Amino acid sequence: MRSYLSEFIGTALLLAIVAGSGIMGETLGAGNAAVALLGNSIATGAGLYVLITLLGPISGAHFNPVVTLMFWKLGHLTLKKMFGYWACQFAGAIAGIWLTHLMFSLPIIQESTKVRTGLGIWVSEFISTLVLLSAIRIGDKEAKDRIPMLVALTVTAGYWFTSSTFFANPAVAVARSLTDTFVGIAPRDVLGFVGSEVLASALIARWFCRSTRQS
Amino acid sequence: MRSYLSEFIGTALLLAIVAGSGIMGETLGAGNAAVALLGNSIATGAGLYVLITLLGPISGAHFNPVVTLMFWKLGHLTLKKMFGYWACQFAGAIAGIWLTHLMFSLPIIQESTKVRTGLGIWVSEFISTLVLLSAIRIGDKEAKDRIPMLVALTVTAGYWFTSSTFFANPAVAVARSLTDTFVGIAPRDVLGFVGSEVLASALIARWFCRSTRQS
Amino acid sequence: MRSYLSEFIGTALLLAIVAGSGIMGETLGAGNAAVALLGNSIATGAGLYVLITLLGPISGAHFNPVVTLMFWKLGHLTLKKMFGYWACQFAGAIAGIWLTHLMFSLPIIQESTKVRTGLGIWVSEFISTLVLLSAIRIGDKEAKDRIPMLVALTVTAGYWFTSSTFFANPAVAVARSLTDTFVGIAPRDVLGFVGSEVLASALIARWFCRSTRQS
Amino acid sequence: MRSYLSEFIGTALLLAIVAGSGIMGETLGAGNAAVALLGNSIATGAGLYVLITLLGPISGAHFNPVVTLMFWKLGHLTLKKMFGYWACQFAGAIAGIWLTHLMFSLPIIQESTKVRTGLGIWVSEFISTLVLLSAIRIGDKEAKDRIPMLVALTVTAGYWFTSSTFFANPAVAVARSLTDTFVGIAPRDVLGFVGSEVLASALIARWFCRSTRQS
Repeated sequence: MRSYLSEFIGTALLLAIVAGSGIMGETLGAGNAAVALLGNSIATGAGLYVLITLLGPISGAHFNPVVTLMFWKLGHLTLKKMFGYWACQFAGAIAGIWLTHLMFSLPIIQESTKVRTGLGIWVSEFISTLVLLSAIRIGDKEAKDRIPMLVALTVTAGYWFTSSTFFANPAVAVARSLTDTFVGIAPRDVLGFVGSEVLASALIARWFCRSTRQS
Repeated sequence: MRSYLSEFIGTALLLAIVAGSGIMGETLGAGNAAVALLGNSIATGAGLYVLITLLGPISGAHFNPVVTLMFWKLGHLTLKKMFGYWACQFAGAIAGIWLTHLMFSLPIIQESTKVRTGLGIWVSEFISTLVLLSAIRIGDKEAKDRIPMLVALTVTAGYWFTSSTFFANPAVAVARSLTDTFVGIAPRDVLGFVGSEVLASALIARWFCRSTRQS
Repeated sequence: MRSYLSEFIGTALLLAIVAGSGIMGETLGAGNAAVALLGNSIATGAGLYVLITLLGPISGAHFNPVVTLMFWKLGHLTLKKMFGYWACQFAGAIAGIWLTHLMFSLPIIQESTKVRTGLGIWVSEFISTLVLLSAIRIGDKEAKDRIPMLVALTVTAGYWFTSSTFFANPAVAVARSLTDTFVGIAPRDVLGFVGSEVLASALIARWFCRSTRQS
Repeated sequence: MRSYLSEFIGTALLLAIVAGSGIMGETLGAGNAAVALLGNSIATGAGLYVLITLLGPISGAHFNPVVTLMFWKLGHLTLKKMFGYWACQFAGAIAGIWLTHLMFSLPIIQESTKVRTGLGIWVSEFISTLVLLSAIRIGDKEAKDRIPMLVALTVTAGYWFTSSTFFANPAVAVARSLTDTFVGIAPRDVLGFVGSEVLASALIARWFCRSTRQS
């Protein structure tokens, strides 16, 4: 039970950080979206370091269905636990968005109108997921005590170098369709994101499972 | 005596960093408040890392009445020491604000006119305090040598993702009512902040005390 | 083979981070190039920390022909491996630029028009390479576990304090001539950069080889 | 001899980072001085981490006459070595400024016209030096392996929360009078800075020497 709670709270706080810092940056940024993205990316990196350090020992700090999928393929979780994690991650992500709207006195229920689609975006999201899962997998094996810093800095850099701004997380993609603010994504564009993410995670799972069997 | 001095100096410097970097950001920021918040949040995080690393071994580096309250409930301090810490924290916080005004050649005695009130703000401040105290408590048990980095990055992220900009500290709330600059809070709005903070700390104390007794 | 793949992928991702964050910063930065450089330098530092931590154990994480040259002079690689690394680094760097263009839906094949030439620039690039190679060499001997952070922060600072913005890498110089975006360099100016880099690396190699023989 | 060279090179690079990042920020910052200060403070912090990590084992990485003075009072250096360090620090600081002008194709010999004077500024510089020397002294005793990060983050925060922008270093103050750019200080204002710094260092030396004798 503690691990489910950890995934729920961690994903909720992650989304609150992502969405809240986006709102703050856009509101204060006087039309300079790069300044908003600076605040957004620094806050998300900082928050991830804290959440993964503190909740990692409890649940592994996945906060991400495709991370959970990868660890299930690697035999770290049962199928039942994977479904439980997924439920907590999606529910937590949505709860985090709604909590953010409450904090910023915005309508709780929203729908994003921000278009994020096209081949470039999908390639970007595919690469983002490959990079994130590889970093987690290699870091987990080679530099376990640095995982919080590695994931934090991967995402901070990812926000800047990918055209899709590095969602790499289906729960994040779904939840971000529910906020019409800086970090939103129009609901009809979610499928392209999730598709790219799942494709990348399938590739990674196949790759790392084979290398695990060999070693 | 050294621990009281440490709480006084640490809280004073914390407030000087918070208020001074806010003044600097607002003065230089050419009307872009997000840039000011970037300087403000980066400086505060950097300063907290230093202050907690250096003063932690002397006094625990609380710099915050509700942190002291939590550690008292957990049996780490006597009641008498808690009151002593509180006095040093409030006095230090106010001294830090006045020192900042002196450094920036501003009138020493000021009163903020910045409105910070409403349900969203109170929820934000409640969440902020929950997050800060949880991070300190879990970090203190599970990753003690990373506490300076954990608290620093929690606050850096907090400035960005909460509508109240993460005071999470009654001494900070009171002292910030005494500066009519970027980080100020109108005196009449302090009660809402302190109320939210105390409520959150009561909840946290109850929660962690029970889990301590059980374990 | 794994080490060649590591150099190829690492250099490709490095260039994607450098070029992609530059495009993002310039696109969003509303004409404020310093904000773009902030995003660019923070993303590059963050990315380097991750890439060096994860790929260092596999290939040494050079991603840079003059770094490979230095380690060859120090006897860490065979001549054949040096040439293999060089091929992977140049190919990876160019692939990274093209991947970035694909992600941002820009024409894949481009040529930079950004002038970067003159004595000041060449001195800057010479100093950049001296600093980078010294940091890697001294860090490798004295503080090996901090190498990822040392290189990351050297480059983050380097972007800001040198007029050439710290390429310090012939593969990077060549690849950046193939993008007409924020981080581009006109093809005719590449020779001045590579010349300065090679000159500095020759000096460093001579210096460190002598000090190695003496000790 | 190696320790003198280390102080010379380290101080030169420190000043190149301080002045160069200031020039870059001001040139690109489109009139937003807070963005320039962000680049300036992040670059300086990053650079200090690298310089202190790499040169600390060779010379102690003082780069600052009042730091050398403090360690002499504590008995870590001979009087003769202190004078040698001072010479290297002043010469290095000036060389760093001139190198920066060369890199940015500016006139080598300049004189600053930036006014930095008044009671607030002097108090600020006094506090800056107290904070820097205390951080170094306490860090050196209690958390020696974190000294590079502690000094780096102290200075990054210091740039933001003090009205004098935290010189805390007589060699830096003198050298910055020789550049009419973002980080300059008019020559006639240098005396007030150096006076405040020496006063603070005298106080600190007296304080820490007594506490050393007692313990």
